Order: sequence, then structure tokens, then C-alpha cells
Amino acid sequence: MSRARPRNGGRLAVVGLGPGGVGWRTAAASALLAEATDLVGYSAYLAMVDAQVAGQVRHPSDNREEERRAAQALDLAAEGRSVALVSSGDPGVFAMAAAVMEQLDRPDRPAAWESVEVVVSPGVSAAQAAAALSGAPLGHDFATISLSDNLKPWSVIESRLAAAAAADFVLALYNPASRHRSSQLERALALIGAYRDPATPVVVARDVGRPGETVRVVPLGEVDPAMVDMRTVLIVGSSQTRTVALPGRARLGVYTPRRYPEVSAGA
Amino acid sequence: MSRARPRNGGRLAVVGLGPGGVGWRTAAASALLAEATDLVGYSAYLAMVDAQVAGQVRHPSDNREEERRAAQALDLAAEGRSVALVSSGDPGVFAMAAAVMEQLDRPDRPAAWESVEVVVSPGVSAAQAAAALSGAPLGHDFATISLSDNLKPWSVIESRLAAAAAADFVLALYNPASRHRSSQLERALALIGAYRDPATPVVVARDVGRPGETVRVVPLGEVDPAMVDMRTVLIVGSSQTRTVALPGRARLGVYTPRRYPEVSAGA
Repeated sequence: MSRARPRNGGRLAVVGLGPGGVGWRTAAASALLAEATDLVGYSAYLAMVDAQVAGQVRHPSDNREEERRAAQALDLAAEGRSVALVSSGDPGVFAMAAAVMEQLDRPDRPAAWESVEVVVSPGVSAAQAAAALSGAPLGHDFATISLSDNLKPWSVIESRLAAAAAADFVLALYNPASRHRSSQLERALALIGAYRDPATPVVVARDVGRPGETVRVVPLGEVDPAMVDMRTVLIVGSSQTRTVALPGRARLGVYTPRRYPEVSAGA
Repeated sequence: MSRARPRNGGRLAVVGLGPGGVGWRTAAASALLAEATDLVGYSAYLAMVDAQVAGQVRHPSDNREEERRAAQALDLAAEGRSVALVSSGDPGVFAMAAAVMEQLDRPDRPAAWESVEVVVSPGVSAAQAAAALSGAPLGHDFATISLSDNLKPWSVIESRLAAAAAADFVLALYNPASRHRSSQLERALALIGAYRDPATPVVVARDVGRPGETVRVVPLGEVDPAMVDMRTVLIVGSSQTRTVALPGRARLGVYTPRRYPEVSAGA
């Protein structure tokens, strides 16, 4: 959001780190992190903020405490602090920006929060980094879907997967698995497989932009859920997505052409 | 893509500038621009690269020459130059990365290109910036669709819009209009309106991150195609997308909650 007039209160910046290290981080995000008096976030994301600023206070928390973390960040800002609430990737995509908006939409929103300037600093999201590392699989229309059923019914996930697969969207799949669930990905792949050829290229990318990064290109019919964990993002091609030999590389590139032929989608 | 072994040839970096100025540009993109011996791109995008590097050659071109531009960039790199092919936003999203992959997939690909190292540097895309400026409308599943029928049949666009609207995706709409077409947006809005309440919040964002940036939040039933041109991106909310009064701001925020209720999607 554009800067508002100066306030008595502090500032809450919801900051996207991008997919890993500083290379894929925006200049605005780095500046907001450097200016902050307080960093709030999931401990694994705070660990991705290398630069230590003198006097800056870090408030690490558990991954599952999004509501409390958002409220804590607003409370600190209401005390006049300059707070950076840190997300991996883009805070606007399955991340903390919505959690902050939910807090601001509470009927019992604390009066102290009225003095806080809220800004959201966007970032490169994991699927975009996976796409860049593999070629251009998101070069045409695509649907971005979280497979986590923590906060939405599985029936909604299934209906969205089927609709997007039938309409021949490329699919970017976030949160494909966790320690607590693995069957969802199997069911999702089976559902998509009803609409797509088993040879459809799938990008399986783990820890993009981080140490140990892996990017694999696997035919849809050979994707093994054992390849996938909570740190993985998948991009499932459309009927048009192709592989291409890239100069001097062993791994195939993947791209979705800009042109779409004159046939009915998903046929 | 990860760095390959050194070659005799040069490098082609397909670089995303992000949505405007340097604030939302990644550190990697800025480094690739600074290292390049040659910048290739649509003249309006090259104009967004402020920093002048001594000896760097600029090759501006028309907006409609994507194939020629991609081939020219590969030719320059094959001569041993370090080329940055510049895109606005994310080169992987409706932009130049796919055009480069298409050239590399040509059956008559020139042998000279085999020596070129190709890298794609991702960026924040326009819809992500529009989302950050308005709150968190992309906080839940969303579909990203280009309304341009230059390269795909309008029937495919309509079937995708209908599928995504019926499955209650948030919709990020790129290329909603151009000098040569305006009726597509009217038809798209009418189609979406068959599935969504007229009060559904729509973010209408123009020139995000650039001088003269405007961001409006408009009910779906009141979106006027006259608000929209080729420099506009639209985000149409789902049934769950809400507006929220933000501290100290006149304009409403917009967000899509992380939770989805136990009802059938699109009902």
C-alpha cells in the first residue's frame, strides 16, 4: 500500500523474503528489514534474514500460530515500533498478509491499532522461482491452489482441481504435503490424471533458492508422493506444456507456449 | 536455472524488472542488468532500467516483436555477449521467458546457440503488486488469466473464465484491454457476473509501481471498461473476498480469508 500520512503509532510491514536468499529478495523488502526495530515471524523464516541490525529485536514463533503472530505484530506497531512481519515468498500468496487483514477485520479490533501504518511488500513466490529454474511453465494461464485442508474442506480443493484441470490451466500446487498428511497429493494427482496425459511434464521443486535446492522434471504418471514434502512446490503442465533440450544442460527445460491452438480446452 | 559450466559462448539472462521502479526489483535482477553488455527489450521496459552502465549497448524494439527479440537476444549471446532480455514484472508470467523457450524449441535452432548459457531471473508480477497495494486479495486459491486473444482463441478464454468463476477462484486478469480491443473485458465481466455477486470487490490497478499509479476497489457490478486499459491489471474477488477499513486510510483494503467455509464451491 502507498505510504500514508505520518502517525503517532508505528508501522507494520508485512514483508516477503522471496523464495530463499537475498538474490530473489526485492530492494524494498531488504530496506524494510533493515529499518525495522522488531522482526516477527516463523523461526525458520527469521533465520533467512541474515543481516543483523544493532538493537533489532527478533520475535520467533511456531509455524502454526499465524493469528497470534499477526496480532502480536500489530500490538508491537501500536506501541510505536517499526515491525517487519516476515513471510517466505510473497506474503500475499497463502501467507501472512491475509492473516493480518483478518485481524484488522475483527469486530473487537483494539483501538490502539488505529494508529498503525500497515504496508505489504510483495515478493517472488515459490512457484515463480520453480518456473524460472525450469524454463517457463507458467507462460500461459495458470491456477494456484493450496492442497492444505487445514482451513478449507477437501471437497473444495477437489472441485477446484477438477475445474482447473478440465479447463486446461497449468496448475501451481502449494502445500502439497506435510508431516501430518500425504494422501492428499495422491488423490490430487489421480484427479488431475483423469484430464491430463501421463506424459505431461511436472516440475517438482524443493527448497528453491535455498541450500540443497532440487528441481526435477517428471512425467505426471511418474510423480511419486515420496518426492514431495512441505518444502516442495509442484507445477503441473497443461496439454500444451512441452519439454525442450536447453543448451549445455542435462536437465530438460519446461515451458508452456504463448499460443493456444484452435481446439476446445481440455479435449 | 542454476548456473551451468563455463562456456565459450555468452549468457542470455531473461530478467524480470518487477512492476516498476527498483524498489520491487530483486537483487539478482539488478545484478544481471549491471553485468550485461547488452540490454534487449521493448523500449518502454528498457526505459525502466535507470542505471546507465558504461559501454552497455541498448537494443530497444517494438512491443509486438517478441519472437524476433528473443532470437536477437540469443544471437547476441552466441557472439559471446552477456545479454539481459528485459521484461516487466515476472518474465515467466505472460512474458519473454516462454518466447525464448519457443525459440530454443525450434527444429532449425541455430548451432551457434548451443554455446549460450540461459538463465531466467524471476520477478514480482503486476497482480502481486496490485494485491500488496490493496491488502491480500490473493490470499487464497486464484487463477491467473490473460484476456488477450492475440495468441489464443476467445472460446478458450471464456471456458477458463467460466471454470474458474464456477469453482470460486479469485481471478487475476492480465491484458484486459488494448488500443485494439475493449469488448473482451465487457464479455469477461458479464461471464464472471453470472457466478459472482455484483458487490464482489474488484481491484482495478493501473501502472502499479510507476508514476501515476492508481489502485481502486470497485464492486463487480460497477466496473466500467473505461477504467481499464493495457496498463491495468484486475483482481476479481471470490465469494469469500471481503473489504476491510484499514487504519488511517480512506481506501478500503481487500482480502481473501485463509479459511473457506463448509459449502460447495461457487454455490
